[in-house]
Amino acid sequence: MDQVKIVVKYAHQHHDQFLAEFKELLRIPSISTDPAYAEQVGQAADWLVDEMKRIGLQNCQVIPTTGHPVVYGDWLQAGPEQPTVLIYAHYDVQPVDPLEDWVTGPFEPTVRDDKLFARGSIDDKVGVFTHLKAIESVLQTVGQLPINVKLIFEGEEEIGSPSAEAFIQEHQALLAADVLVLSDGGSPKDQPLMTTSIRGMAALEVEVTGPERDLHSGAYGGVVHNPVHLVGKIIGALHDEAGRIQVPRLYDDVLPLTPQEQQAALEQQQKHAQGYEPSFIGVPQLWGQPEEALVERFSAQPSCDVNGVYGGYSGPGTKTIIPSQAGFKLTLRLVANQDPKDVAAKVVKFIEGFAVPTLDLKVEVKGTGWFAQSALDSAAIRAAAQAIETTWGQPPAMVRNGGSVPIIGLMQRVLNLQYVPLGFGDGKNVHAPNEYLHLSHFGRGIDTAIHFYFNLAEQWKEEGPGL
Amino acid sequence: MDQVKIVVKYAHQHHDQFLAEFKELLRIPSISTDPAYAEQVGQAADWLVDEMKRIGLQNCQVIPTTGHPVVYGDWLQAGPEQPTVLIYAHYDVQPVDPLEDWVTGPFEPTVRDDKLFARGSIDDKVGVFTHLKAIESVLQTVGQLPINVKLIFEGEEEIGSPSAEAFIQEHQALLAADVLVLSDGGSPKDQPLMTTSIRGMAALEVEVTGPERDLHSGAYGGVVHNPVHLVGKIIGALHDEAGRIQVPRLYDDVLPLTPQEQQAALEQQQKHAQGYEPSFIGVPQLWGQPEEALVERFSAQPSCDVNGVYGGYSGPGTKTIIPSQAGFKLTLRLVANQDPKDVAAKVVKFIEGFAVPTLDLKVEVKGTGWFAQSALDSAAIRAAAQAIETTWGQPPAMVRNGGSVPIIGLMQRVLNLQYVPLGFGDGKNVHAPNEYLHLSHFGRGIDTAIHFYFNLAEQWKEEGPGL
Repeated sequence: MDQVKIVVKYAHQHHDQFLAEFKELLRIPSISTDPAYAEQVGQAADWLVDEMKRIGLQNCQVIPTTGHPVVYGDWLQAGPEQPTVLIYAHYDVQPVDPLEDWVTGPFEPTVRDDKLFARGSIDDKVGVFTHLKAIESVLQTVGQLPINVKLIFEGEEEIGSPSAEAFIQEHQALLAADVLVLSDGGSPKDQPLMTTSIRGMAALEVEVTGPERDLHSGAYGGVVHNPVHLVGKIIGALHDEAGRIQVPRLYDDVLPLTPQEQQAALEQQQKHAQGYEPSFIGVPQLWGQPEEALVERFSAQPSCDVNGVYGGYSGPGTKTIIPSQAGFKLTLRLVANQDPKDVAAKVVKFIEGFAVPTLDLKVEVKGTGWFAQSALDSAAIRAAAQAIETTWGQPPAMVRNGGSVPIIGLMQRVLNLQYVPLGFGDGKNVHAPNEYLHLSHFGRGIDTAIHFYFNLAEQWKEEGPGL
Repeated sequence: MDQVKIVVKYAHQHHDQFLAEFKELLRIPSISTDPAYAEQVGQAADWLVDEMKRIGLQNCQVIPTTGHPVVYGDWLQAGPEQPTVLIYAHYDVQPVDPLEDWVTGPFEPTVRDDKLFARGSIDDKVGVFTHLKAIESVLQTVGQLPINVKLIFEGEEEIGSPSAEAFIQEHQALLAADVLVLSDGGSPKDQPLMTTSIRGMAALEVEVTGPERDLHSGAYGGVVHNPVHLVGKIIGALHDEAGRIQVPRLYDDVLPLTPQEQQAALEQQQKHAQGYEPSFIGVPQLWGQPEEALVERFSAQPSCDVNGVYGGYSGPGTKTIIPSQAGFKLTLRLVANQDPKDVAAKVVKFIEGFAVPTLDLKVEVKGTGWFAQSALDSAAIRAAAQAIETTWGQPPAMVRNGGSVPIIGLMQRVLNLQYVPLGFGDGKNVHAPNEYLHLSHFGRGIDTAIHFYFNLAEQWKEEGPGL
């Protein structure tokens, strides 16, 4: 424990220097979605590799992919009895528009009211940078890390990780580890969180084509099948009145929550009840299968939403046509133990069952991603929870989340890793103008990472993976 | 008859000048549905009044309505023993999107391959303009018309004539006549047509509102009702598998065709079989209740089409949202003896039956219009058929049409008029990009109108209305 104190003290003494270095990283506009910024994404990757080398990491390299590069570095001198932790974060950022809504430039990091404003300050350059400064603090004081680490920083998270699957399959040996730490996301102001469950996902597009051009609905109304009508039939058939998805065998692999998990879900719901008030969301009433708790519904049950529908004329006034084409975009959120490719195939089959000889129906799977789950009862989760409690003064709430981070489920599955959520992005306006990180959380994040490394080494000595 | 020859010769000599003048009218983008073009609709009305005055019509005026104005002019010097003919056409046009599909601009009238391309070239500025040039030719040569005429040009036909009912009720004295000539519609290349039956119509809009802003489909998928799903349920429930509309009691007042009418419908179908080939329309197969002949289905049976559906994101890629709002536009085509307001009320009731406590559902009737039918055995129909036979070299086919000109049914009903269809819009791509009029039909239409005026005067002398 004395070692940890020395390390933390070093980090505190270097706070201002670390902050200045963080601003350097924040100044690089690594917007992954816009081809105009491809060079800057590469520049951020180079900056990170230089920094990793400087602080004493090894094997540091920019690894090309079919898209933006991955940054890799490791330190593997802790000995084989210690775990190897694969740390994931991403260095790419969202676009900044509307630019005019930013009080200060998105790539001119500025501190106001104890907040650090910059694009990427939360999402997710803080995830990248916090580990670098925690590791630097350990190596500069103790001289060696208590665990083995591999760092992997992605440059395509904000565009859906298109190169990730191929990259992970190709680099399984390089990425081999015991524990996967996800440092993306964060906590609200006064309550540390650990997101122990995220959903998988399948995205599909459906296109129905009728006449080769829009037809006059007077001349052809009654003799030509309107593609919007088939689109309606399909969308209308997706759910029953209670909100249960009607795709056959879709629920086959859904793992029921254990009584303990149900209890935890209920507690989570009570704690965050306000966020699920109809008036907060702006709906007359909530929806869904009433027999399950809200948190269970959005995190332990699959969901299916049409994200957009189109067909014909939607402008002002009337246009009396039979549209030539109609279609919709559909995403499903999936849970343990649903295989997203299997579910996608079931949805395709269900939709293709609506085919008629009078129209052309096309269904396409646009992407899939695995769910991810933490084993709550494990050395790594205990180590992380304890690190948070030490630095925040309160234990983290273990929460289930309905969203998806496809690369995590993928790594967990392909590399067979335990998953530990450890996000440092505590602030506001993710994906929006005036993104900011609470400045006090900047140093606290570094402390948390340091404690986590040492806690994990100690837990692992006692119990191994502790599963 | 000598008089007619002189008039027709005059029209032929002035063909190029008439065409140049027609292009002037076509250049005015009188799109009635889009408020951004309100000024241009007014500009078209002013252009027409100036032209009517110039050619010698009287009482010429732009009559305001609660929407776009009506253009009126008359010539009533033919004496009380001659019939008064109320000539109807409309000067407003449909929107032009997708604009990029037009080879030349929709409001830059262009002749290619003996076709005059422009929005409104068929539907229905040719109906307006043909009568003006026929009347001009008579007045410039003979000095007086053989019949009394009242011209009424509407500016709201393409949006369902919302001001028409009030206008007609208010101006019954001004519009009083014996015969109503409808110059909207036309004939295919080699077969003159008279459309003796048109359908009525009801237009509705449905709007479903869910959360007050788009929500993250991960965070809320499964607990917030997606408005697109309800829109799908409603649209999907409109028809059964055979295409029969599912709104209760909707077919109550549908008048079955007489055996003679059924026979005529079958003949019409055989004659125009090619136009209803799936390959001609560009569909894999036709659709609808199989027990009825095609012509019967689209002219003697009601139909119901969603003209446009919207909700959420339809751009490239995936956007994982639960949309805040979704909706659709719906039009029904109605037949003898369906009261359009009664049917609209039934549809509203049906849709409102889908209301749920989790979403806000709004249904609005945007317009209604009556069906119209000709008395086949009448002086006016005979005069028109003969005019067509003289100019085309063959008698017209009397056909049933599935389209709607709501104001006709209304005028027929309120003003108690015989209805004579006399359309000059012979070309293609009505309501679609690259609308065109066959150039040779431009002059032939003017000839037909001239012959009709003189034929009717003669028939009326012999037999009166001839009913």
